[in-house]
Amino acid sequence: MSPRGRRPGGADTRAGIVSAARAEFAENGYDATSLRAVARRAEVDPALVHHYFGGKPQLFAAVMDVPADPAALVDRVVAGPREQVGESLVRTFLALWDSPEGRPRFQALIRAAVSHDDATRMLREFLTREIFGRVTAAMAGEGEPPADLELRAGLAASQMIGVAMMRYVVEFPAVVAASHDELVAQVGPTLQRYLAP
Amino acid sequence: MSPRGRRPGGADTRAGIVSAARAEFAENGYDATSLRAVARRAEVDPALVHHYFGGKPQLFAAVMDVPADPAALVDRVVAGPREQVGESLVRTFLALWDSPEGRPRFQALIRAAVSHDDATRMLREFLTREIFGRVTAAMAGEGEPPADLELRAGLAASQMIGVAMMRYVVEFPAVVAASHDELVAQVGPTLQRYLAP
Repeated sequence: MSPRGRRPGGADTRAGIVSAARAEFAENGYDATSLRAVARRAEVDPALVHHYFGGKPQLFAAVMDVPADPAALVDRVVAGPREQVGESLVRTFLALWDSPEGRPRFQALIRAAVSHDDATRMLREFLTREIFGRVTAAMAGEGEPPADLELRAGLAASQMIGVAMMRYVVEFPAVVAASHDELVAQVGPTLQRYLAP
Repeated sequence: MSPRGRRPGGADTRAGIVSAARAEFAENGYDATSLRAVARRAEVDPALVHHYFGGKPQLFAAVMDVPADPAALVDRVVAGPREQVGESLVRTFLALWDSPEGRPRFQALIRAAVSHDDATRMLREFLTREIFGRVTAAMAGEGEPPADLELRAGLAASQMIGVAMMRYVVEFPAVVAASHDELVAQVGPTLQRYLAP
């Protein structure tokens, strides 16, 4: 241990940072949590947090135990052709959710977000800033943005959250049985109409 | 008390039936629960259950503390013009959810359905039989039904569940602030495309 009580590097350090971040996000929400405050609580140098996680969205994904950086996935989707953003979003999230590591973690995430006010707030702030913020910025950047872009982004999210609820929580048979191609064909145009009408 | 231990009529009887129904639905799910079994458990005559509630969907709505009979609302929607079924569904459910009695009860319903396996199963079976069953039967009754009607009904439900999640649970600002007219204009065509393409 260093004189200032900092932990040595390695898996313990990473786990300690995730644990400190979980507490900070729960106490202060996503927006008001800084990497510096997480580092202070974990008793590590802030540079170490950057080293392990890169930034706040990746740290949040680690806290939520999600096996990917959702913000980076969204960036990749909106960088593609504008007329395919709907289908691309559906395909990207299905691939993430339906992976063997993804499914139980997303089920747990939805249950937590619905059951605990802390988790609801964290998720709302994360979705607003890192997911919809990126989507709306990308959509507004080309052509004429619709005046109700935030509502449209929220409705796109509502459709994806609803699909996740029906496929992983309520387990409605026809939605569970549907292939990725079927869901992309049905739900892709819905997101496309909301985001890039 | 009668010799067979049956309770007298009135508010206590009604409450006793609701309580017995809650236990039966939780133990056996929606489909396998009969009004006769509820009456037996409540120690009342089956005719009294019919007298107070009419049928199983109304009894379920009472157990869920929902201030309307969702199955009857769906019947009214699908009885209207086919080209307005999407907008009509959105408007009907928003009126129900946004009523002062409706909002807290639907929040509680969503939380229960996500948190407890019993409630999830009840809700899935109720939605399948009383909501989607009616919608798909009505849609299949006119013209050529699409082959994937059950998936389409499930996706229509996923959109409405998602809107409820965003408006009442996650409380995403733009979706909370949207008027009924705005939501009908945006979400109505989505349901229309799923249900009557």
